[in-house]
Amino acid sequence: MSVEIKGLNEECGVFGIFGTPDASQLTYYGLHTLQHRGQEGAGIVSTDGKTLYQHRDRGLLAKVFADPAELKRLVGEAAIGHVRYGTSGHNSIANVQPFLFRFGDGDIALAHNGNLTNAVTLRQQLENEGAVFQSDSDTEILIHLIRKYINEGFIPALKKSLNLIHGGFAYLLLQKDRLIAALDPNGIRPLCIGRLANGAYVVASETCALDIIDAKFVRDVQPGELITIDQDGLHIDHYTRQTQLAICSMEYIYFARPDSIIHGVTVHNARKRMGKLLAKEHPVDADIVIGVPNSSLSAASGYAEESGLPYEMGLIKSQYVARTFIQPTQELRELGVHMKLSAVRGVVKGKRVAVVDDSIVRGTTSKQIVQMLRNAGASEVHLLIASPPFKFPCFYGIDVSTRSELMAAHYSVTAMCERVGADSLNFLSIDSLVKAIDVPDAGDAPNGGLTVAYFNGKYPTPLYDYEKGYLKSLNAQERLARKENVR
Amino acid sequence: MSVEIKGLNEECGVFGIFGTPDASQLTYYGLHTLQHRGQEGAGIVSTDGKTLYQHRDRGLLAKVFADPAELKRLVGEAAIGHVRYGTSGHNSIANVQPFLFRFGDGDIALAHNGNLTNAVTLRQQLENEGAVFQSDSDTEILIHLIRKYINEGFIPALKKSLNLIHGGFAYLLLQKDRLIAALDPNGIRPLCIGRLANGAYVVASETCALDIIDAKFVRDVQPGELITIDQDGLHIDHYTRQTQLAICSMEYIYFARPDSIIHGVTVHNARKRMGKLLAKEHPVDADIVIGVPNSSLSAASGYAEESGLPYEMGLIKSQYVARTFIQPTQELRELGVHMKLSAVRGVVKGKRVAVVDDSIVRGTTSKQIVQMLRNAGASEVHLLIASPPFKFPCFYGIDVSTRSELMAAHYSVTAMCERVGADSLNFLSIDSLVKAIDVPDAGDAPNGGLTVAYFNGKYPTPLYDYEKGYLKSLNAQERLARKENVR
Amino acid sequence: MSVEIKGLNEECGVFGIFGTPDASQLTYYGLHTLQHRGQEGAGIVSTDGKTLYQHRDRGLLAKVFADPAELKRLVGEAAIGHVRYGTSGHNSIANVQPFLFRFGDGDIALAHNGNLTNAVTLRQQLENEGAVFQSDSDTEILIHLIRKYINEGFIPALKKSLNLIHGGFAYLLLQKDRLIAALDPNGIRPLCIGRLANGAYVVASETCALDIIDAKFVRDVQPGELITIDQDGLHIDHYTRQTQLAICSMEYIYFARPDSIIHGVTVHNARKRMGKLLAKEHPVDADIVIGVPNSSLSAASGYAEESGLPYEMGLIKSQYVARTFIQPTQELRELGVHMKLSAVRGVVKGKRVAVVDDSIVRGTTSKQIVQMLRNAGASEVHLLIASPPFKFPCFYGIDVSTRSELMAAHYSVTAMCERVGADSLNFLSIDSLVKAIDVPDAGDAPNGGLTVAYFNGKYPTPLYDYEKGYLKSLNAQERLARKENVR
Amino acid sequence: MSVEIKGLNEECGVFGIFGTPDASQLTYYGLHTLQHRGQEGAGIVSTDGKTLYQHRDRGLLAKVFADPAELKRLVGEAAIGHVRYGTSGHNSIANVQPFLFRFGDGDIALAHNGNLTNAVTLRQQLENEGAVFQSDSDTEILIHLIRKYINEGFIPALKKSLNLIHGGFAYLLLQKDRLIAALDPNGIRPLCIGRLANGAYVVASETCALDIIDAKFVRDVQPGELITIDQDGLHIDHYTRQTQLAICSMEYIYFARPDSIIHGVTVHNARKRMGKLLAKEHPVDADIVIGVPNSSLSAASGYAEESGLPYEMGLIKSQYVARTFIQPTQELRELGVHMKLSAVRGVVKGKRVAVVDDSIVRGTTSKQIVQMLRNAGASEVHLLIASPPFKFPCFYGIDVSTRSELMAAHYSVTAMCERVGADSLNFLSIDSLVKAIDVPDAGDAPNGGLTVAYFNGKYPTPLYDYEKGYLKSLNAQERLARKENVR
Repeated sequence: MSVEIKGLNEECGVFGIFGTPDASQLTYYGLHTLQHRGQEGAGIVSTDGKTLYQHRDRGLLAKVFADPAELKRLVGEAAIGHVRYGTSGHNSIANVQPFLFRFGDGDIALAHNGNLTNAVTLRQQLENEGAVFQSDSDTEILIHLIRKYINEGFIPALKKSLNLIHGGFAYLLLQKDRLIAALDPNGIRPLCIGRLANGAYVVASETCALDIIDAKFVRDVQPGELITIDQDGLHIDHYTRQTQLAICSMEYIYFARPDSIIHGVTVHNARKRMGKLLAKEHPVDADIVIGVPNSSLSAASGYAEESGLPYEMGLIKSQYVARTFIQPTQELRELGVHMKLSAVRGVVKGKRVAVVDDSIVRGTTSKQIVQMLRNAGASEVHLLIASPPFKFPCFYGIDVSTRSELMAAHYSVTAMCERVGADSLNFLSIDSLVKAIDVPDAGDAPNGGLTVAYFNGKYPTPLYDYEKGYLKSLNAQERLARKENVR
Repeated sequence: MSVEIKGLNEECGVFGIFGTPDASQLTYYGLHTLQHRGQEGAGIVSTDGKTLYQHRDRGLLAKVFADPAELKRLVGEAAIGHVRYGTSGHNSIANVQPFLFRFGDGDIALAHNGNLTNAVTLRQQLENEGAVFQSDSDTEILIHLIRKYINEGFIPALKKSLNLIHGGFAYLLLQKDRLIAALDPNGIRPLCIGRLANGAYVVASETCALDIIDAKFVRDVQPGELITIDQDGLHIDHYTRQTQLAICSMEYIYFARPDSIIHGVTVHNARKRMGKLLAKEHPVDADIVIGVPNSSLSAASGYAEESGLPYEMGLIKSQYVARTFIQPTQELRELGVHMKLSAVRGVVKGKRVAVVDDSIVRGTTSKQIVQMLRNAGASEVHLLIASPPFKFPCFYGIDVSTRSELMAAHYSVTAMCERVGADSLNFLSIDSLVKAIDVPDAGDAPNGGLTVAYFNGKYPTPLYDYEKGYLKSLNAQERLARKENVR
Repeated sequence: MSVEIKGLNEECGVFGIFGTPDASQLTYYGLHTLQHRGQEGAGIVSTDGKTLYQHRDRGLLAKVFADPAELKRLVGEAAIGHVRYGTSGHNSIANVQPFLFRFGDGDIALAHNGNLTNAVTLRQQLENEGAVFQSDSDTEILIHLIRKYINEGFIPALKKSLNLIHGGFAYLLLQKDRLIAALDPNGIRPLCIGRLANGAYVVASETCALDIIDAKFVRDVQPGELITIDQDGLHIDHYTRQTQLAICSMEYIYFARPDSIIHGVTVHNARKRMGKLLAKEHPVDADIVIGVPNSSLSAASGYAEESGLPYEMGLIKSQYVARTFIQPTQELRELGVHMKLSAVRGVVKGKRVAVVDDSIVRGTTSKQIVQMLRNAGASEVHLLIASPPFKFPCFYGIDVSTRSELMAAHYSVTAMCERVGADSLNFLSIDSLVKAIDVPDAGDAPNGGLTVAYFNGKYPTPLYDYEKGYLKSLNAQERLARKENVR
Repeated sequence: MSVEIKGLNEECGVFGIFGTPDASQLTYYGLHTLQHRGQEGAGIVSTDGKTLYQHRDRGLLAKVFADPAELKRLVGEAAIGHVRYGTSGHNSIANVQPFLFRFGDGDIALAHNGNLTNAVTLRQQLENEGAVFQSDSDTEILIHLIRKYINEGFIPALKKSLNLIHGGFAYLLLQKDRLIAALDPNGIRPLCIGRLANGAYVVASETCALDIIDAKFVRDVQPGELITIDQDGLHIDHYTRQTQLAICSMEYIYFARPDSIIHGVTVHNARKRMGKLLAKEHPVDADIVIGVPNSSLSAASGYAEESGLPYEMGLIKSQYVARTFIQPTQELRELGVHMKLSAVRGVVKGKRVAVVDDSIVRGTTSKQIVQMLRNAGASEVHLLIASPPFKFPCFYGIDVSTRSELMAAHYSVTAMCERVGADSLNFLSIDSLVKAIDVPDAGDAPNGGLTVAYFNGKYPTPLYDYEKGYLKSLNAQERLARKENVR
């Protein structure tokens, strides 16, 4: 959740609801709990059964809907919403979802969480056939595919289209008379279904969005499923049967809210177990255990409990967003991170500190944290990471799609330890990670139903458009392994 | 720090700096860390040695200085700043500090944290003598008093004035060539001095504001002191010698940031000890210990450590501020608190939960928390309060100056337990509170150098303007005790 | 120009520039002078020869670019801009131009002034072939047509597309290496070319946009022309030779700025001549002549000059935009128009007033003006309209596309006079209108090269999608005439 | 009214109302029509008979009250409002009126139009006696004086205070149960009384503010009057009988709205007569007459009528406010004035143009207008000023209080003509100015009841604080004359 600190960003949260008054208002509340999945833009599209109404803009949800009139304008008993993390390229409002497409035969709104691996290829094909794209986003591709096959009927066209796109995706579509949800064949992104007391159905990225509106959890959407909700209720269908659960392990490690339950696993509990297993694998000689707020507090408390060391609040995070103005002097240079994190001098002074973090991406924050703790008087700083080294990029919706920025892709653990300036550095093993999460729905899927490609390079899908660039980024040994993997 | 949840509000944080370029920018950073002391307004006044420059407005610091040009306009090597919690009455910009008064013989800016007990009387006297007040704030009284005696010289007039006002106060004054700080004779509000590497001096409500700008802690301002900082450095003087430390215990319990060190005591550590002593006084038969984020997490971890029960994250707090629009349906009624706090179902379900909170003011939040935990499946909810029952109002700068709103003033602990719907309810004793904080500077001051009047009604100063109304609010027994106390 | 008063709205102004630093800034200045052509939205797209940069939003230009950083972001030596009047339907940002389409083979931006008569048909055809539209605007159709034929090359595809669309249109297209302008075969919307001292070319809806940036007028774009501006300069081509000038007469009567010169005619001069011919056709027995500010002042001064009556300022218009809050009392009901127009009591009191207005659309404003003058003491009010009765809708870009709202479509002049409460009401004849404008470029085009369909129902193009609804709106006699006209 | 063009700024408009629901809303409408008197800040204070409510901020009225909730908050049946032009010094919100002072014995709000000549002296005296000023404004002085004598009763204290201040002033005061208005002994600033149909009384700077709310004009406030409006109606009293009408002639020449009637003279009519007399005094050999919009159009039409030359629209003013961003290139340098004024090429090309302007202050705008007309093709440009040369500063509320900025103070008419680049330059004589305005209420007051000190240096009051600096600014001959004048 500490987006600004980590530099590791989820690309979106989605929420949909059908069959209740105040649909757009409930969507607003749902999106509020999903705000950690995207802070760059937000939007809602509602329908009153006749037409679709849209409002979206750049910025946090509360800013986008600062004028209550905007939400009131979104009338009707069904709605979908979206929070977005925008890639650096074109942070234009044109890319803020849900998209709304107006057709003579009926409007369609579309919201998407995930990333396609064959988007470039598909887009080029579609453009060659005359398609006009207005956004940079992958999301738009689906609608062009649907329209290409629309003569076969909407649902058949949608199913065909979903079989043509590859990668990780959770889609919500809204038409004037129904809400549709679809999940990729590996179930890489989380998506769950809930139900209000009044019978309305809800679909959301995380269960925390169900809780806030008192919706009862019904089930997780499964890989390859096509869910339709209309006047007649909930319909579960499949667009493909070639599926296998491989949910993104980073959802458990870092992204999801601790109170969310994904495929039966409470995120906080998984994290606490990661901390416990980390303590078993890597006990350290320290006086206290502290966590990096907020995402690593669960793991830190697990580490403390298992190790028997006191759990302390050695770092605190400001609740207030602050501007960092342009800094003319050297002294002010490093203030950025200080604005968000502070070491608690009275806790760490003179202590050997075991600091637990959930992951290391670029390593810059880790370095600053170690420095901050030493400045506050820590006699030793032992850095413990509650996940394996993040060596390989994500192509399914996390904003890390090149290896160059991943510290673990370029340095050994020893070298990393030296670079961040810690007295020791240790990571959780992949095996313990899988064991800590322990997805009940996994069946006999590899890696306990998880995508752990970020740690071992074994991706659950072909990489298509990314394959070539990815191969180039690998060293000789990794390249060889990759060739074996993709066979 | 969870202002919206508790309904217990500090009235202000102050920050001042003298002798460094970027004085206003450093003040901005300092105020950022003090934002928890006031979110209704913010302002900075700077000086370049010739004139004084002011910017202030209603709202959070980041909003007030959203346009970077506003901060750039505040040139010079000295500045004072203020964050404010506005009382409900007149949330006008006229009440946002620092105040700036322009005189033919030199401008003065003034920032204040605290509350006077003889303000009404003084104001009436001054008005009768022709004084014109523009704000509702007590703060303005000081400047009118100073001007009344200005012929005796500025510092003598200031000293005389400080002896005429009573209550709790920490003042910062800025003139074109010096920064002045003054603390009330009981040191009720915290105020500390720090120093930058370049020699500049800093005065701030809490040490966290020193840390963010890498200022080294020098010392706490002591009761009755008058501190002057100018080109020649730091000068420590007294305007009175009749002093005795009685710092507000609520600073340790609730208000101050956990990383701040007040009179030698790290706030987090004090809170953790409160939790530990609470566990000793009131052990409960529970499966897990959870805290109400963020202010009660320290106490909860202390309780867990002492009791040997697992410390879990059973409640989480949203990082994002959200609007609660007008709610037309019954279902949406209770959403307000949900927007800020969520129970972690996967943690509390089927568990006997010991939930630690720092205090109970009105009791409404406690009731909602208990309900929230039960809804999430907790089999028992034991509420443990890491401070004594809050029975008597504060007249020194906390926004609780009538008894009517204090639940503990009207109900026994048993009745309170029933009202909030908990399985058990227990409070820390005053003795344990004093022991947990254990102020080293206290000497032989009563209550270990703390003001604990909120719990026992024994105020360290006469109440003047408030005395009459206060007496009325007491029951027969309390009234009797009061009469003995004030003798 | 008095958009709010009249209820008659132009749909857009365009501006383009190629070959100069500060292209986007000059576009901003150009759009500023075209603001009277659209106040609902504004945007600019620039190019630095590599990529295209866009900023657009709802509201006035000054609001859209309130943050100077937005304009600075639009780097490069070429740009196009647009100001828009949004139809009531979907005032979404998605409809604010210029549109920006990103293709693998190069981005295209598009800005449009006008309206197509076969848009519905074309859009349906395109959608049936798989096209996905994101806006409601006609404008998008062109880009879909171009992409449909893109294999033939861009310019051939563009020419073919321009031959498929019908109605009134002035298009600007921006690619990374050129600026393209195209005008419909009847030249219904104005479009002119200018040149800066540094050799850069400018294309704009009106010459006032050339004047503000000191661009020298080069020529008007002629019907059916396709203008290309690139590194090699200006290229004039045609996409059709079947052309005949029929420029919208309402541009001269009401829309264009008085200082603009359209096809050789200064708008102020044309209006003054309308006033003079109106005085010849309809002399009235009055004491003074006044005009309705600002658009009718030219005609009023012409009327005064010709009639020999004194020209007075009997109505004044507020320079300031004001909010009209919801009005609870009867007295406040009529304040709306008062906020914009005021009668000058000291001028009109006791006088027989000849008030000249440019046109009557719905008649509500006329009624209010007559009332306002009587309240201010005018003894008689003679209303003189410097154009013929507005009886037939415009399908080429003016926001009056149904007859129902046109007063003159439903009432005789006598009945209109009674309804607006004037002592007399008279209109300019079509012949005099044509004579007053006297377009030098007209050649032997009917109506002196003007579209006067609003007054006589003879449209210069087939109405396609609108034909059926239009016929229905006519009375028997008009319907018969229509059938003859379209043969 | 063309504030930005002229660089000559009125300092304020005031409006008050007593005895009607929607008092604050009507005040809003009234202030809207007075917006030309001040664009830098606006505010309203209302009362419901118990307490006073205030809202004020920097910027235009529509911006200050952009949130309708702000106006709704200002409940009650009485209100005063203010629009302000801020002097360059301290454009702080602290200086935005109405000021609101809260006293134990009742709140007072205060709004002021004008300027005192002994403010510095009074302020220093008051400060020496202990007064604390929060604004830089003269306005605050009155309240301090009142409080000094408050023991004598409010009205006696007010009367005594009004006799101690000197200069030009129109004050409005609001208490919970009455509205008070006071005018200086020379009646330099305009102030009029109106009445609504429901019996409520209105006081405003100009009659245009009465018209917009359909208030009937009652009478002008006369010099030295003290008007009280309360539950019992209107009471007219005097604080002094030593009065003589000397209303500011610039109100007629430039500031007031053309539809306002001041002391019986409609401003437009006065201006038209100035134009006529100018034509008699200075006929020119020209083809057309044009005015500088908007303030000079009345005079220009008078000049045209008298001279028999055609009145044309040779300059037009943009209706839209525009930002002028920082301009990096030479070509953009001069765009500022172009954003506001444009020459109509088709009108002035090849013509000998007589351009009428109301006054010359610094001369920079005149120079730009002449240049603009020449660039548009004018063969000759004859500049005719409908007032005498502006040689002496105003100390009564116009933002020209030093001579250095006045072109006519330093150059002969011939030299001015050369500097602005005109073919000829002529001014109206003082005698003709007085004759053109012809105030019926003047009696035997000098200069027909007008202040013409700007043209002849004969001020109607002593200059007190300004005398010394003013004398320094004079040349030898003027200084001699001054000494005679003040005797």
